[in-house]
Formats: sequence, structure tokens, C-alpha cells
Amino acid sequence: MAVTLAELARRFQGKVRGNPDVTVERVATLETAGPRDISYVSDRKYLALLEKTSAGAVILAEADASHFAGTALIVDNPHLCFARVASLLYPPPKFKPGMHVTSVVSPTARVAKSAWIGPHSVVDNDVVIDEDVFIGPGCFVGANVTVGARTRLVAHVAINDRSAIGEDCQFHPGVVIGSDGFGYAKDDSQWHKVPQLGRVVIGNRVEIGANTTIDRGALMDTIVGDGVKLDNQIQIAHNVQIGENTAIAACVGIAGSTVIGKRCTLGGQAGVIGHLAIADDVHITAGSLVTSSINQAGIYSASLKAEPVEKWRRNAARLHHLDEMARRLDKLENKLQRPSEEQEN
Amino acid sequence: MAVTLAELARRFQGKVRGNPDVTVERVATLETAGPRDISYVSDRKYLALLEKTSAGAVILAEADASHFAGTALIVDNPHLCFARVASLLYPPPKFKPGMHVTSVVSPTARVAKSAWIGPHSVVDNDVVIDEDVFIGPGCFVGANVTVGARTRLVAHVAINDRSAIGEDCQFHPGVVIGSDGFGYAKDDSQWHKVPQLGRVVIGNRVEIGANTTIDRGALMDTIVGDGVKLDNQIQIAHNVQIGENTAIAACVGIAGSTVIGKRCTLGGQAGVIGHLAIADDVHITAGSLVTSSINQAGIYSASLKAEPVEKWRRNAARLHHLDEMARRLDKLENKLQRPSEEQEN
Amino acid sequence: MAVTLAELARRFQGKVRGNPDVTVERVATLETAGPRDISYVSDRKYLALLEKTSAGAVILAEADASHFAGTALIVDNPHLCFARVASLLYPPPKFKPGMHVTSVVSPTARVAKSAWIGPHSVVDNDVVIDEDVFIGPGCFVGANVTVGARTRLVAHVAINDRSAIGEDCQFHPGVVIGSDGFGYAKDDSQWHKVPQLGRVVIGNRVEIGANTTIDRGALMDTIVGDGVKLDNQIQIAHNVQIGENTAIAACVGIAGSTVIGKRCTLGGQAGVIGHLAIADDVHITAGSLVTSSINQAGIYSASLKAEPVEKWRRNAARLHHLDEMARRLDKLENKLQRPSEEQEN
Repeated sequence: MAVTLAELARRFQGKVRGNPDVTVERVATLETAGPRDISYVSDRKYLALLEKTSAGAVILAEADASHFAGTALIVDNPHLCFARVASLLYPPPKFKPGMHVTSVVSPTARVAKSAWIGPHSVVDNDVVIDEDVFIGPGCFVGANVTVGARTRLVAHVAINDRSAIGEDCQFHPGVVIGSDGFGYAKDDSQWHKVPQLGRVVIGNRVEIGANTTIDRGALMDTIVGDGVKLDNQIQIAHNVQIGENTAIAACVGIAGSTVIGKRCTLGGQAGVIGHLAIADDVHITAGSLVTSSINQAGIYSASLKAEPVEKWRRNAARLHHLDEMARRLDKLENKLQRPSEEQEN
Repeated sequence: MAVTLAELARRFQGKVRGNPDVTVERVATLETAGPRDISYVSDRKYLALLEKTSAGAVILAEADASHFAGTALIVDNPHLCFARVASLLYPPPKFKPGMHVTSVVSPTARVAKSAWIGPHSVVDNDVVIDEDVFIGPGCFVGANVTVGARTRLVAHVAINDRSAIGEDCQFHPGVVIGSDGFGYAKDDSQWHKVPQLGRVVIGNRVEIGANTTIDRGALMDTIVGDGVKLDNQIQIAHNVQIGENTAIAACVGIAGSTVIGKRCTLGGQAGVIGHLAIADDVHITAGSLVTSSINQAGIYSASLKAEPVEKWRRNAARLHHLDEMARRLDKLENKLQRPSEEQEN
Repeated sequence: MAVTLAELARRFQGKVRGNPDVTVERVATLETAGPRDISYVSDRKYLALLEKTSAGAVILAEADASHFAGTALIVDNPHLCFARVASLLYPPPKFKPGMHVTSVVSPTARVAKSAWIGPHSVVDNDVVIDEDVFIGPGCFVGANVTVGARTRLVAHVAINDRSAIGEDCQFHPGVVIGSDGFGYAKDDSQWHKVPQLGRVVIGNRVEIGANTTIDRGALMDTIVGDGVKLDNQIQIAHNVQIGENTAIAACVGIAGSTVIGKRCTLGGQAGVIGHLAIADDVHITAGSLVTSSINQAGIYSASLKAEPVEKWRRNAARLHHLDEMARRLDKLENKLQRPSEEQEN
């Protein structure tokens, strides 16, 4: 597919500096782009690369345009514009609708004519698969699941019974939706399973990364809002709720019944313990553990920075005596505030 | 299924307050329950909800009974009773025995007549599948594996060769049992694989959450005791042993050859390094790393609590100079203990 | 298979002490070995076990040979020699070449005559599968993927389109290669997907543990060097590069565009944030987060050690006031350095 800069400017509210008839076919980095490629600069530290690029065109903010002599598409948000240009040039792969001969689809499932069920996929009783859904190879869609229009299960996705999946979602391989939550009651010595009876309900435009798991609710539902983006290897426990347009990086764990607000971000390997409420617009840095509710928007952190091990060990050893240090400091202060009495002792 | 309160009281050692002929069919939260539902209170902070509930009956401790005017099932441990009532009302789904036409089962496998092998599942040579085992869609059961009676592999489970799985287990999608442990020997520059020759041996009544992995032993076996409960995305390395009735929350990693005692709990994202011994009844809080053996029952922690980032950064920066701070504190104390000499300098 | 000690000594540059015609068939621990087994000691703390072992032969370093009266294979590096002996005695399982009748292989895929495509595996268009490749049950190999000679996909592996996999690799169940990276651009409120157009390129002799995920690059490629060993449940984000012979333990996360050097090791649950450069021969301890580039070989750490919770809480509480403590310490020092002025106030 080839598109003129004029057309890109029209679609994405930009203006062309240079020849609007220049056409581009691909996106590329500044270093690798050729004359049929469009590139972008969103971080000013890459401005120096503009001088040497062979890109046919570059997406730039007005403020940076003077650093580039070639054809430019000037926009307010170059990264966003780049995302849109790339999405235009690289649409999701087309597919022929139908069901692969090796798929196993229950006669009670209702599958839209425009949908595709891939090889070795299993679609259980009373499933509803909407228009243009793509179910890749080796997926399992349990009984009574609903999958909204245009959603893609790339491959090897397991969605357990009764989950409700929105429109325009994309789930990557190894995603598990609707597995049982971790709920047990204890007698004197043993754990007794509490049947997990809720569902997972996922909104529209949700993307879920490889090997991420979302457990069904215990009695009520686990809920993932519209526009949520989840990276790989995230664990969402039973009864969690995640607000709209929250984005969570890889390896995060969110424990049971915690409610996360809208437009939050959680850095990689962050964790949130159970039964907390996190406000809208809260940002947790990578590797930080949240152990109490947060009711104020802002950035929160508890992560430490790796340093040379001998130095770290000396500091960490002191940390394990910090309370004692603090008491000694108190004592010293007291002594110095009352120097005369002390000397009388 | 409908059951009278009298019947529940008889089965679960409770007593009915009110009409014993009231029947319930479902479990529900206090807020959502209707007259055919039974609910429960195990945490006193929910007592206030009792006033407004429309539940047909509520499971309560004797001490809390006065907070509720309706029909009650009075028991010692309401949460445990609720688990049992729910298990009675929601038994595991029934299945027809047999083998799906798309399953691939070795002629040398011995599969009980009452077991089910689901679509696209593969059962390799010399596997033994016991009575009432359910193997869901897309599972792989490697050569010489044994699976005990009534165990359920929900879907997409991979059990590598020679693993031994007990009775009444439940494994959720994405579970991998018996993958190779991470064992290499190094020459000057390269890693050489140490063949992983042990097995994974899993006891009875073990539940394993989605995408949890348990590696086979190097020479001896990796062992998971009876009644162990593992949440999602846990990693158990080669030669680990986990004692009976220990429960491990999501995203925990246990490194090679570590032995965990009985009735322990590990919070989410906790970690235990290799070659340690953890006593019985040890509890590790979420996000804590265990770096040396623990021979005393109790609760152990090393987790920090996320706080506003500017505040945290100031504190964390100081932590990286804590050893120096401690030395300065020592000096001050020395000075103050010998004030006269100091002043002579 | 049985092999004489003389033959082992010849192959692995050792010397036999005792009868060179002794034959061994298996490897075992010192405690469990019998007369047809060979064992080894690489850690001096196990030397005491030598007295009671019934092993037919033991691999030992010269320095330790005097602790054992029986037949010994004396080598420079007993652990390495053991790895090689075990690899000789336990070669990867043989397989018959071909394609299982239930596999789905595109007519445009080029599959070597000596390769095996297992049951319910899917091989998409224009894939190239080289000699002696083993693709186990339930794998997905996407369009235009190349798989080098002798590589084994154990089972349930998903390799997305255009990934390039080297020779002599082994990927365990649940591995996902080439899933989309986590790339979005933000407008005022929503996230817009940045199409992920790069590939994953994996070198030779790479082993990847169960449920590990490696995302494709955004524009350029994600690259894993020759001889890299990845344990289970690791997450490698888009555009990461991992240098040759680096070994990474379980549950590690490496964020986008970070470059890891050669011969590094990362302990379990370690993390590295995005856009960093880590030098060759850097070692990160378990559970440590790397938040800035490291340009010097060495060991780095930021992990804390779990201790009894009451003690830990007292120390951790102080940590959250450490900046204040440091200021108070500064003040005290100032006071004591100018005692006369202070007393004048």
C-alpha cells in the first residue's frame, strides 16, 4: 500500500512541508529508512539523526521541524501520528471466514459467517462468536463465552466458560481467561476449595499480552475496562477491577478484589496486594509493591536500584538495624538538647 | 439443585436458627442474594450488610448471629461452611467418559473406562490414566505419566514424560509439569546442559493455577506434597520439595533444591533462592525474598511499601549511603561519650 | 548404553584411577548410585558422602581424589565432565521423521525429510524447517518462520510469523516467541497501538524454559545471541538484545530496547528497566532491579532479605523516614563540630 503525504496530512490533522505528492509505503527508523519509508522523531535526543536519514518523509513536531531539511509531516503528536500511519500501512492480516476442517465447534455455538475458527481450535456449547472475529490455531473457547466483533485470538488462547469478551480486542498466545481464582477456606490443617462462580468480563479495545492470566471472580465478576492494555505475563486475580485505559507492563501481579482506577499505569514487575482501591491516574514505578490503598493521583514508588554488591551489602546490612540506628539518633539528640544535665550524670 | 437448611446443618455440623425447611439453590453475596440464595459473613466488617440482605439464609458464627434477624445457619467457621455448601451446590461439571475423536492416544496407554480424553489432546506411550480423570482440550500427557483418579486437567495443560500426578488434583490452562530444570555446567565461556533426569511427583488434592510451571528434578525428583495449593504463574525449579498443605500465591518463584515445609504460605511475588530449607508453618509476606534458610515457624518479610515518588526517592537515595550514615552515627556517639577528651582536641 | 571409564577418560580428557574397564550405564547421586552408576563431586561439602557411596565410579577433581577409595575419573572440572557424561548416556530421544496425520502443514512450507511435525501442530505458509528438527505436539509455527537444524520444540510452543530460530535450540512447553511488543501512543485519554513490525531472531544453542515469552521488535528486531540460556517464565520485551552465552534465571523481566552483554547472569526475579545498556560479564543477584545502565563487569544487587516480620516492620518504617534521619544526623554533626557557637545560641 502506498499513500501520499497529502493524504496522511488530511487523515491525521497534519500539514506537509515539502512535496505533498511524495508517497510512502512503509515505516522505518531514521537510520534504516529509505525514500519509500516514513519515519518520525518524538524524542528530541534523536534529532541529530535527522541530518543523515534517507527517509522519504519524517513526522515531526513544529518545534523540531527546523532540524530537518527534507519532506516533513508536521503534527502535534508525532508518536501518535506515527502509530496511526503505521496502522494504516500495516492493517491486521486479512483472513477468509470459515472454520478449519480440524476445528471442533459445538453445534450449539453461534459463529458469525464472517468469523474464522482456526485449526485445532475448540469452541464449546452455546458460545457466541461475533462478526469478523479471528480465532487462531489451538485456541479453546469454553461454554457460554461471548466474543465481540473483530476480536482476534492470535493462537493458543484459553478462555474458560462464561467469560464475556468485548469488541476489537487482541489476545496473544498463552493468554488464559477465566481460570479459577485462588480461593480456599481452612480448617485446622487443610485447605478447602471455594468454588469460583463469577465470570471475567472484558471491555472493548483490550489487548492482552502473551501468557497473561485473568482469573474468574469468586461470586461476582473480574472486570477489565474498555481500552485497557495488558503486557505479557501479568496475573489478575479474582474480583479485580481495572478501570478504562489503564496500561500495565509485563510481570505485574494484582491480588484479589483490588480495584484499579482509570488511566493508571503500572511499571513492570510491580505488585498490588488484595482488597485495595487505587484512584484514577495513579502511576506505579517498575518493581514497586503497593500495600495500601492510594486515593490521590500521582506517581508512587518503592523500588531500589541495583549497585555493586559489596556496597549494597554494607548498606542493606545497616537497613536491618535501622530501627536501632534511629533510637540511637534520638538519644544523641536528647543528649545534645540537654547538654548540662547530661554532663551532670 | 435445592437443599434445605436442615440438610446443610446435618452435613456441616451447624444449627438452624429459623425455619429449617427453607431451601436454597445458589450462593451469593449479601448484596446480590435473593430468597433462594445462601450467603455468609466471615469478616465482621460486613456485618452491617446483614440488615439489607434479601438472602434466603445466611451462614454466621454464633457471636454474630444477633446482627441478623432472618434465617441463619450457625456454625463455628462460616467461611469453611460456605466453601462446603458451595461445593455441594456447584459440583464439578459432569462429563461423558470416552475419548474425543480428535484425541491422539497411544495404543500402549492405559486409560480407565470412566475417564475422558478431550479434543486435540495427546496421550503418549505407556501413560496410565485412572478412573474419572478428565483431560480437557489441547492437553499433552507425555510418555509414562500416571494421572490419579478424579484429577482434572482443565485445558492446554502439558505434563512431560514420567511425571506422577496424584488423585483429586486440578490443573488449570497453561500449566507445565516436568519441563527440564535449569542446569548447566560452564567451561571457559559456554554453558553445557546437564541432562535433567528426575521426575515431578505431585500428591493428592493439589490444585495448580494457570501458567504455573514445575520443572523435573535433575537426578532426584521435584516433589509437591498432598493438599498443596499453587496459584497462577508460579515457578517451581528442579529438586524443590513442597510440604503438605502449603499454599503459594501467584507469581512466586522457588529456586532449585529448596525444601519448603508443611502448612506454609507464600504471598504473591515472593521468592525463595535455591538450596534453602524453610521450616513448617512459615509465612512469607507478598513481594519478600528469602535468601537464607528459616528454621523457626513465624511470619517473615522484606517488602517495602510504595509511597509518593519524590518522598521515596529522597529516602531511597539515603539508603544507598546508609553504611556511611551508620559510621557517622558511631562517631558522634563516641564523641559524646567522651566529651572532655573531644573538647581537648 | 554402557561405557567404560577408559572411554570416558579418552572422550573428556580425564584419567582413570582404578580399573579402566569398569563400565557405567547411568548417572546418579552419591547416595543413590549403585555399581553400574557414575556420580560426581563438584562441591567440597559433599566429600563426606564419598565414604558411603556404592557408585561404580565417581568423577572427581585431583585435589579431592584422596577422599575416595573407589574407582575415579579424575578431571579438571567434575561438574562439566558430569554434564558431558550424562549427555552421552542420555541423548535426546530419537524420533521417526515425518508429519503426524493430525498436523496441519501448509503446502508452501519447506520441511526437511529428517524432521518431525507432531500431532495437532500447525506449520503456516512459507515456513522453513531444517534437518532433524523436532516439533512436538500442539505447536504453532507462524508464516515465514525459519527453524534451524536439530532444534526441538518440546510441545505447546507458539512461534509467531517471521521469527528466525537457530540450530540446536530447545524450547519447552508454553514458550511464546514473536508476540507483539507493548507499544502504544497516547492521545488525551486513549492508547493507540503502534504496530509491531520487527522480528525475533534467536541464535544457535539457545534453550528457553517453559512459559517464557519473547516479543517481536517494534521496527527493528529482538535478538537473542548464540548459547543464551533462559529459564522458565522470563519476559523479554521488544527490541531487547541479549549477548552470547548469557544465562537468565526464572521470572526475570527485561523491558524494551535494553541491551544485555555477553556472559552475563541474571538471578531469579531480577528485572531490568527499558533502554539500558548492560556490559559484558555483569551478574545481577536474584530479585534485584536494574534501573540504570551498567558499564563495568561485576556483581550488582539491590535485594533485601526477609526477616521476622515485627523486626522488619520496625526497620522498614524507619526507612520511610530515612531522609529526615539523615538531616537530623547532619544537624547533630554540625552542632558538635561547632560546640561553642551552638552553646551561644
